Order: sequence, then structure tokens, then C-alpha cells
Amino acid sequence: MSDTKEPLFNRIALIGIGLIGSSLARATKQRGLAGEIVACARSKATRDIVMELGIVDAVYETPVEAVQDADLIILCTPVSTYADLAQAMSPALKPGTIVSDVGSVKESVIRDVGPHLPDGVHFVPGHPIAGTEHSGPEAGFAELFDGRWCILTPPVGTNAAALAKITTYWEALGSMVEIMTPHHHDKVLAITSHLPHLIAYTIVGTATDLEESQQADVVKFSAGGFRDFTRIAASDPIMWRDVFLNNREAVLEMLQRFSEDLSVLQRAVRWGEGDILEDRFRKTRDIRRGIVDAHQAGTFDAREPDNDGN
Amino acid sequence: MSDTKEPLFNRIALIGIGLIGSSLARATKQRGLAGEIVACARSKATRDIVMELGIVDAVYETPVEAVQDADLIILCTPVSTYADLAQAMSPALKPGTIVSDVGSVKESVIRDVGPHLPDGVHFVPGHPIAGTEHSGPEAGFAELFDGRWCILTPPVGTNAAALAKITTYWEALGSMVEIMTPHHHDKVLAITSHLPHLIAYTIVGTATDLEESQQADVVKFSAGGFRDFTRIAASDPIMWRDVFLNNREAVLEMLQRFSEDLSVLQRAVRWGEGDILEDRFRKTRDIRRGIVDAHQAGTFDAREPDNDGN
Ligand SMILES: NC(=O)c1ccc[n+]([C@@H]2O[C@H](COP(=O)([O-])OP(=O)(O)OC[C@H]3O[C@@H](n4cnc5c(N)ncnc54)[C@H](OP(=O)(O)O)[C@@H]3O)[C@@H](O)[C@H]2O)c1
Ligand SMILES: NC(=O)c1ccc[n+]([C@@H]2O[C@H](COP(=O)([O-])OP(=O)(O)OC[C@H]3O[C@@H](n4cnc5c(N)ncnc54)[C@H](OP(=O)(O)O)[C@@H]3O)[C@@H](O)[C@H]2O)c1
Repeated sequence: MSDTKEPLFNRIALIGIGLIGSSLARATKQRGLAGEIVACARSKATRDIVMELGIVDAVYETPVEAVQDADLIILCTPVSTYADLAQAMSPALKPGTIVSDVGSVKESVIRDVGPHLPDGVHFVPGHPIAGTEHSGPEAGFAELFDGRWCILTPPVGTNAAALAKITTYWEALGSMVEIMTPHHHDKVLAITSHLPHLIAYTIVGTATDLEESQQADVVKFSAGGFRDFTRIAASDPIMWRDVFLNNREAVLEMLQRFSEDLSVLQRAVRWGEGDILEDRFRKTRDIRRGIVDAHQAGTFDAREPDNDGN
Repeated sequence: MSDTKEPLFNRIALIGIGLIGSSLARATKQRGLAGEIVACARSKATRDIVMELGIVDAVYETPVEAVQDADLIILCTPVSTYADLAQAMSPALKPGTIVSDVGSVKESVIRDVGPHLPDGVHFVPGHPIAGTEHSGPEAGFAELFDGRWCILTPPVGTNAAALAKITTYWEALGSMVEIMTPHHHDKVLAITSHLPHLIAYTIVGTATDLEESQQADVVKFSAGGFRDFTRIAASDPIMWRDVFLNNREAVLEMLQRFSEDLSVLQRAVRWGEGDILEDRFRKTRDIRRGIVDAHQAGTFDAREPDNDGN
């Protein structure tokens, strides 16, 4: 897929270089997909780490410097920063440049970024369904996107060549690409990612509010199921705040359904209705089987073995 | 700790031999903790598999046959079966025999088993905080209890020598032993295990009710957090039905707290209160850190690497 003689892009600019941005830098370099990789990081600490790690060719403080002469720009910051960043870099954007992103919501991204892009600049929003609960440039790794899906949500009328090129890029990173509308994306992710995170944050929060004597026991005996929630609930607070602020409708709808279903189980527990409990607990095994069959059952971190096939 | 010359017990009888029972059989054999290991399994299929696996010396259809001459008996079936099993085996129990179990709730177990045991039989209920979402004798493995906690909940007046012997047994299996009241156990497990399972079953059930077109996407894009819930929600329906029927009060109390906390986050999402979201999301990181520090952060299956130390 990727041309090994000539890189796919001359210069890729990553705006923000934390877990996702630095994984993109590593994977892009490893697979020779760019002549040059540059990044933008607001903090000196991050700029220093990134240069020390040697994962980019140059790092700049401002977006307008970083995007200079780039033929692909990827926003890799929390989504609430997108509007300002797009505005800041727009004076330096030339026709033919592709702008993409990795944000976990997509309708708001199109609303926030689209209006700032000059004519002739191609906007192809994206979202890799890959990540861990860790943050920052040191948490990234080149294999993060391997065997994982990347969803692209091109607005109506997107340049076909630009879409094809971004698709080739993600495939060269090891991902499978799926194209859908931003609206559909936000609905699907509300149930597969956003609601699970909200619930995990909630239950870990509930445990945090227990009396101190009980908290030590919560930590000690977390292996009974709770610790799987704590991993999710250790994810970046800013990133997730932004997700919920920007996918309100879909999250609230799924939350409403979840609450109704929880009430049914709560009632069954209260009244000792074992048949209802058993029946509901049986239904859910099929979905797990589907995930195992689709080879998406590995744990959240692609470096861990996919041991669910047995 | 275990005496390599003379086994700790002459004959251990496992009543029920699924995931937990067969893991006990394997680990007991591997570490030479019993002169003989026998099991009881109601179905012929299970009896055949167990003999084929070669993990016990003999397997019987009825509890009364299996417990003959055993000096340690461990109940390893769903907790709703305990009363009948205890009644069935009681005629064959001799003074000095130790009866224990692995059930995930403890107050109901003492209520159900205690009255059936003849005088002089020592009852020391237990619960290993270790497991996977798989069931049956083929799912077990000898390392399941390694580095995991086992909680013992001896009733008031339990024979000290019997308690010491069971403690030695679990330590020889690689576990750390903690002693607490059954009431405290049931409260702690309500938040660390029972509520997480109820919530995981619920959210996976909510996804199961989506239109069919969306379900395929739920499976495909599950890597965003959802799949961690599907693993928990693939656990045995009968075992979990019994847990909820037998730990009603504590589960309902924790569920009430959870629902209140979820309402706060729901309101914050609805009204776009980013500071409340961020604040709550920050609090939960400390608990994760505690779990990592306590070396209980590995995934649910002890065979998987504990990669959360970074
Ligand atoms: N984490 C996941 O699992 C995951 C998965 C898929 C998609 N995503 C999406 O990927 C994006 C980045 O997530 P991440 O996990 O890589 O986050 P991260 O590790 O926390 O990195 C965030 C980066 O954005 C920069 N940044 C933060 N606020 C900024 C601001 N106001 N102005 C300029 N730069 C700012 C940070 O700079 P400093 O280092 O200087 O603070 C850092 O370089 C998010 O939009 C998220 O929705 C995340
Ligand atoms: N799974 C976990 O993660 C976990 C963790 C800690 C504690 N526990 C506790 O361990 C116990 C066993 O769980 P498990 O995961 O090992 O279950 P499992 O793999 O499903 O095995 C259950 C065993 O109990 C037998 N059984 C079921 N119903 C029975 C009945 N009515 N009469 C006689 N035998 C019956 C089964 O016999 P057949 O094979 O003939 O059907 C099988 O041998 C439960 O009390 C559970 O609460 C489980």
C-alpha cells in the first residue's frame, strides 16, 4: 500500500503530540510514510521530551510555524482546542493541503474546524479506535493502530483524491478504514466508548466516596471486576470532559436507555426475580462472541496479547 | 509453607468442578497439597471431561460418595445449590472434617450451610478473589490463585486449628489470606465485584437492544471501552443470578449510591458543566494508582501480563 521508494507525504505536521500524536509520529517514521515529521506542542516540557525521544524532525511552539509547507496536518489535541488551533494556523494553509484529526467526536469537529479553512484546503476528519488510559508523548507506541479501525467522516463534497490519500495513510499504519457520516459516528461511539467511560468514572467515583476504611479494601479486592473499570476511569480528564461537552445529545440518549435497563435489573434484584436476572445475563454473551470473532477482543492496549480466542 | 514430604490433607473433596473447582484441583496437585483429590459432578459430561483431563483421582455423581473419608471438603458450585448439597453430604461427615467453599457471597452461605453440619465438623467459608469470565472444568488453570487474595469468613467460635490449616492451604496455592466478617465481605464485594458485574451486564444489554444495523458497529468499534464490559458480561449467568439473589441488601445500597452519582454527571453533561465533569474525572485516578501499587492491576486473568506498572 505505501510506496517504499517515495513517502506518501512530504511533510506531516502533528498539532499536539501526546499519546495519539506521538504514536502517529512513531508509526509514520517506522513505516517511512513522510519525508519529514514536525509537531506543535504548547509546553516547553513536551517540546523537550519529544526532541529527546527523537520521534519528530522538528517541534514548534505555534501551529502557524508547524504547518508551514506541510501537505498533511493532523490535529491531535483535546477537541475543545480545535477552533482556536484552526483559526491560528489558517493563514499558513495553502490550497491542496489536507487537514485531518483524531478527535473522539466528529460533528463538533466539523462545526469547529470547517469554517476556518481557506478554499482549496481538504478537510477529512478521522478517529482511530485505538488508545490506552495513559497520556503524553512517552505513552505512545508505533503499533497502537495495528489491526484497529480508523473511522473517517468526510463532509459532503470532500475531494476524492484527498480521501483516498488519507485512507492509504491509515492502512499503511496497519488500520482498517471505515467511512461514515459524523452523525452516525457520534451515535455509535456514544454507546461503544463514551457511555462506558462515563459509567466507569461514576462507579470508581462512588467507590472513592466510601469511608476510608472501606477504600483500602476496594483497592485490595479490586480483582473481582472493579479494576477493569479503574483502568478506563484513569483516562485523561480533559480529553473526556471535551468528549462529553461535544457529544451531549447522543450520550444523553444512550444514558437514558441504560438507566431504564438498570432499573429493570434493580427491580429484579429487589424482588428476588432470578429468572429475569438469568435471562438478561444470558443475552449478553452473544455480543462478546461477536467481538472475539471480529478479532477486536484484545484488551485496550494493542501490545497485550489477544487471549480471548479460547 | 507447604510440607513437601507429607501433604497438608489426606483427601480433598471438591463438590462441583468448573472453573474454580478445576483450578483448585490443578493447583493442589501441582503443589502436592493432598494425598488424594476427588470431585463430585452432577453431569456425566463433566465427570468424563474431568477424568480425561486427569486432574482428580476419582469423580462421583453424588456428594455423599465424594465426601467419604475426606478431611477437607470445598463447595465449588453456584451458591444457590449449597443448602441442598450440605444436607445431602451431612450423613457422611465425620468430626474433625473441615468444610469450606469458594462462593462469591458469604452471609447467605453461612445461613445455608451451617445448620446442616454435624457437631465437630469445622466450617470455614472462603472466597478467592480470582476468576475469569470462562466456565467449566476446561477453563481452569493452576496459576489462577497466584498473587491473588483469598478472603476467609470464619463464624464466631471457629476452631483455630482448622482456620490455620485452611490459611496454610491458600497460602500454599500462592494466595494472600485476609480474614473478615461475612457482613463486611458482602459489603466490600458489592462495590468491587457485584455492582461492576450488574452494570456491565446492563450496558451490554442496552447495546443488544439497539437496531440491528447499529449492533454490527458496536461489535466492530468495541475497542473504545465497551469491550472491557463485554468480557465481564460474558460471565456465567447462573453464578451471577445467585450472587444477586444472595447479596441483595448490599448490592441495592451500592446501586443507590451509584445512581445518585450518575445523575450528577448526567446533569453536568446536559448543562455543559465542564468543570464538574473534569473535577470528577480527576478524582478517580488515585484509586487506579492504589491498585497498580498494590500489584492487583493485572487483567482479570492471572495468565495475562500485569502491564500496568508503567
Ligand atoms: N487517548 C485515547 O485513547 C484516544 C483515542 C482516540 C482518539 N483520541 C483523541 O486524540 C486527541 C488527543 O488525545 P491524547 O490521548 O493523545 O491526549 P494527550 O496524551 O493528553 O495529549 C494531548 C496533546 O494536546 C496538547 N494540548 C492540550 N491542550 C492544548 C491546548 N489548549 N493547546 C494546544 N495544545 C494542547 C498537549 O500538549 P502539552 O503536552 O504541551 O500539554 C499534548 O501534546 C483527543 O482529541 C482525543 O479525543 C484519544
Ligand atoms: N468464576 C469466577 O470468577 C469466580 C470467582 C470466585 C468465586 N466463584 C464462585 O465459585 C463457584 C463456582 O463458580 P465457577 O466459576 O467455578 O462455575 P462453573 O465453572 O460454572 O462450575 C460450576 C460447577 O458447579 C456444578 N453445578 C452447577 N449447578 C449444580 C447443581 N445444581 N448441583 C450440583 N452441581 C452443580 C457444575 O456441574 P456441571 O458441570 O455438571 O454442570 C460445575 O461443576 C460459585 O459459587 C462462584 O460464586 C467464581
